[in-house]
Amino acid sequence: MTAPRRLRIDLAYDGTEFAGWQVQPGARTVQGTLEEALGKLHGGRPLRARGAVRTDAGVHARRQVADCDLETALDDAGVLHALARMLPADVRPLDVRTVEPGWSARFAAAGKTYVYRLDRTPRGDPFRARYALHRPGPLDVAAIEDALARLPGRRDWSGFAAAGCTVENRVRALDVARWVEDPLPPDPDAEARLVFRAEGFLQHMVRNLAGTLLEIGRGRFGPDRVDRVLETGDRRLAGPTAPAHGLTLWRVHYNAAEEEPAVG
Amino acid sequence: MTAPRRLRIDLAYDGTEFAGWQVQPGARTVQGTLEEALGKLHGGRPLRARGAVRTDAGVHARRQVADCDLETALDDAGVLHALARMLPADVRPLDVRTVEPGWSARFAAAGKTYVYRLDRTPRGDPFRARYALHRPGPLDVAAIEDALARLPGRRDWSGFAAAGCTVENRVRALDVARWVEDPLPPDPDAEARLVFRAEGFLQHMVRNLAGTLLEIGRGRFGPDRVDRVLETGDRRLAGPTAPAHGLTLWRVHYNAAEEEPAVG
Repeated sequence: MTAPRRLRIDLAYDGTEFAGWQVQPGARTVQGTLEEALGKLHGGRPLRARGAVRTDAGVHARRQVADCDLETALDDAGVLHALARMLPADVRPLDVRTVEPGWSARFAAAGKTYVYRLDRTPRGDPFRARYALHRPGPLDVAAIEDALARLPGRRDWSGFAAAGCTVENRVRALDVARWVEDPLPPDPDAEARLVFRAEGFLQHMVRNLAGTLLEIGRGRFGPDRVDRVLETGDRRLAGPTAPAHGLTLWRVHYNAAEEEPAVG
Repeated sequence: MTAPRRLRIDLAYDGTEFAGWQVQPGARTVQGTLEEALGKLHGGRPLRARGAVRTDAGVHARRQVADCDLETALDDAGVLHALARMLPADVRPLDVRTVEPGWSARFAAAGKTYVYRLDRTPRGDPFRARYALHRPGPLDVAAIEDALARLPGRRDWSGFAAAGCTVENRVRALDVARWVEDPLPPDPDAEARLVFRAEGFLQHMVRNLAGTLLEIGRGRFGPDRVDRVLETGDRRLAGPTAPAHGLTLWRVHYNAAEEEPAVG
């Protein structure tokens, strides 16, 4: 009989065939899939794995972070190996570390980086169809960059939150909002990415930002539209919610002290 | 009433959900999917689209080439646009050009390049799970490169052909056999690729070469094993057939004169 210990688990997933992170009855979720595998290492008893972020259905993660309390004789490397064996090909463990008992993947997080990927090839690249929004045709990149430059700062993001968002405090500090073109050399295939880093994001916030920026890119809104959405908090002034499949949770950031939380 | 004209159609596909290129009753194939779309532009009548290569089930194509005779009032750009609209996200048209009546995508081809992709991350990248064989752990790259250097030349490839291969003449000139590491900067995710270019390949030849080279990489065979397979023509001396999903038809090469076969 071993005592339970708290683990930090880093994982990547292709969100295409998941109904999002959070457990839902009758649906295939990342959290449910992870908890099922962890349960087998936990004497078959149920347990909870808490994610830093609850990604929506169809959203991908290059590096999500979760914590859980596991009672097992395996060491961290053994848990990582067992998870790699048990988890399916579309959700892969990257790292497992024992952390302090009170450590929380969600509350210890200092920020997150999201990337919204755009496939800019004329007819769409079948190898990116699951991971990037196909958006061919001209885009006014100068206008998009003008709008992006207006975003960083500590602001109330109500106008970019989902209509059903119930969070009281909608003030978040956003510190990076960038357009990156052709990040995939030497492949000549055109891709553009919208990169956002903030201490936190409201529900649908990145997808609503992406949808608004794409409307600015095709000239339907001017770059100052983002100011109006921010000032008024009026969701109806923003663009449509961009599709989930273009969005990837790129990284969860921890403060320097929390970046290395391993104790065992 | 317009006369039929011969078209060259370049296309890319994710082979995961196809039972290969060639039409088979009751199966979803690339050829069948393409012919169904083309048929709608052909007055609803059936027609044949002949591929340069008949890729196996699960094998991808970055640029396959097909020809067909189409009777339509649409110009080439119109056919491309219509195909882009009708074809699903996992098979995308890249180019449509009118060519000379006798032109054959298969017989005009001077060579093909295939790439076998290896995901070298420790636990597997979920975003490459459909396109690359997950092969972590040490590999003796010097031994693989030694073996690759023994391959180029005009040879009888019987020992690397599928057991059921019925082709009489198994002599083909192979001119490129290379190992390429980390072709995806600036992403730090490790990938290695086996690249082969030849005038032609026998059934399963690239996958049997890849399987043999991976056995050499992990020290089960010496690099000179490829000489023995080539000399004896004995398939049993080669390694296992590497899985289909790691293989991509990268390009079909045409001679300079045939590279630009457009006449309209």
